[in-house]
Amino acid sequence: MNETIEIQHSHRSTRSYKTDPVSDEMLTAIIEAGHRAPSSMNAQEISVIVVRDAERKAKIAELAGGQTWIAQAPVFIAIVADYNKTDIGVRKAGQTQVIHESMEGLLVAGIDAGLVLANMMVAARSLGLGIVPIGSIRRSPQAMVDLLGLPPLTFPLVGMCLGHIEKDAPLKPRMDANTFRHEERYDANGYAAAIDSYDETILEYWKQLGRTDGITWSQNLGNNLKQVYYPQVKPVAAMQGLLNDK
Amino acid sequence: MNETIEIQHSHRSTRSYKTDPVSDEMLTAIIEAGHRAPSSMNAQEISVIVVRDAERKAKIAELAGGQTWIAQAPVFIAIVADYNKTDIGVRKAGQTQVIHESMEGLLVAGIDAGLVLANMMVAARSLGLGIVPIGSIRRSPQAMVDLLGLPPLTFPLVGMCLGHIEKDAPLKPRMDANTFRHEERYDANGYAAAIDSYDETILEYWKQLGRTDGITWSQNLGNNLKQVYYPQVKPVAAMQGLLNDK
Repeated sequence: MNETIEIQHSHRSTRSYKTDPVSDEMLTAIIEAGHRAPSSMNAQEISVIVVRDAERKAKIAELAGGQTWIAQAPVFIAIVADYNKTDIGVRKAGQTQVIHESMEGLLVAGIDAGLVLANMMVAARSLGLGIVPIGSIRRSPQAMVDLLGLPPLTFPLVGMCLGHIEKDAPLKPRMDANTFRHEERYDANGYAAAIDSYDETILEYWKQLGRTDGITWSQNLGNNLKQVYYPQVKPVAAMQGLLNDK
Repeated sequence: MNETIEIQHSHRSTRSYKTDPVSDEMLTAIIEAGHRAPSSMNAQEISVIVVRDAERKAKIAELAGGQTWIAQAPVFIAIVADYNKTDIGVRKAGQTQVIHESMEGLLVAGIDAGLVLANMMVAARSLGLGIVPIGSIRRSPQAMVDLLGLPPLTFPLVGMCLGHIEKDAPLKPRMDANTFRHEERYDANGYAAAIDSYDETILEYWKQLGRTDGITWSQNLGNNLKQVYYPQVKPVAAMQGLLNDK
């Protein structure tokens, strides 16, 4: 269709990086792609923290549960909800910020963080670089807050490894498009059959990768979604002043 | 730098559309760009609902508070948190889903919805089409739930208008990059000065658009963030079974 859409349609996560650094020019272009993403009400309540220090990256890899590619990739970018920034504006206007105490406020920061992340991912891949999103910066959020020096009203939402690709993964199959795209109204009639079929597809995908411990999509979600996967998110967010009481 | 990054760096919102329909081929390519976005744990807990029916679009425009461009654009896409889809997989694995009762679960759906939205936006613009993200589908969420036939464990997060551009807006300035990008650790030292400068820049931007009612960034946030802007999000999400108690 065109080069941009081809990059998006061939999205994959890279977990093996060369040691070569990412040039300042590339890094600036990638981060500017995130910076130009829209935000709700133009609040610009997202900040990113670029980590290149080897020791700090190693610590993040450990806090994320031993994800070695975080230490290996030359750049790690933490994407942070930054209601501290907006609070300065709200105070300047003589008002008291309330949005950060609401479910809506957290949700909006999540959506806007996703916009920043996707833009940086696509920009990076358009330059031939590899990326992998890192949700596990929410695994030990208090330690991340300390490591990145995050003040009240901020919270680490998601991260991204960035670097030159050593070895790339094959394209990971998605569930049938009819479980993603609905016309006019929500329609789950095809879900059960599509999930059965996808469970088989994913097992085949693991086999192709030579992994004998592969489990189905359903088994994976059963293991992971039967619990609050990162239970420290709510208490640490609350300690940072980000509530969801309203 | 390259075409993809140029599209991202020149992001703008379109609020004036031609009546020409979007071709099926283009729409499929755009939605597939969203479908190929990664999701946390490969949960694929996002669905999109494509609305082209004129009456339904007019109703959404009304529920969004009178945003006429929603009715005008030939396509509206609602992006929905879909823990109903994952629930089918979790049940198949013999487990009980819990994640949708947590702040973490809602946050992840927000991030993943943002990934889908950004990919669809960039794909659309790469094809010469215009888009505008619509947060105000959260303004009357119960009516949106009814209109889109959304079952328990689903919730409308954000929307997007899509169509051929009638008139495009000029590039909207962003706050200085040093308020977005931090090195190694969070550093808000430059914030106050950057906000003062940006408040002037935004006033100048409104003047260029011929708008005499333009206010500063700080005033805008003061007006909007002193409250929970869409107060129905939390109660309606709860009625859909999406809690944030854990």
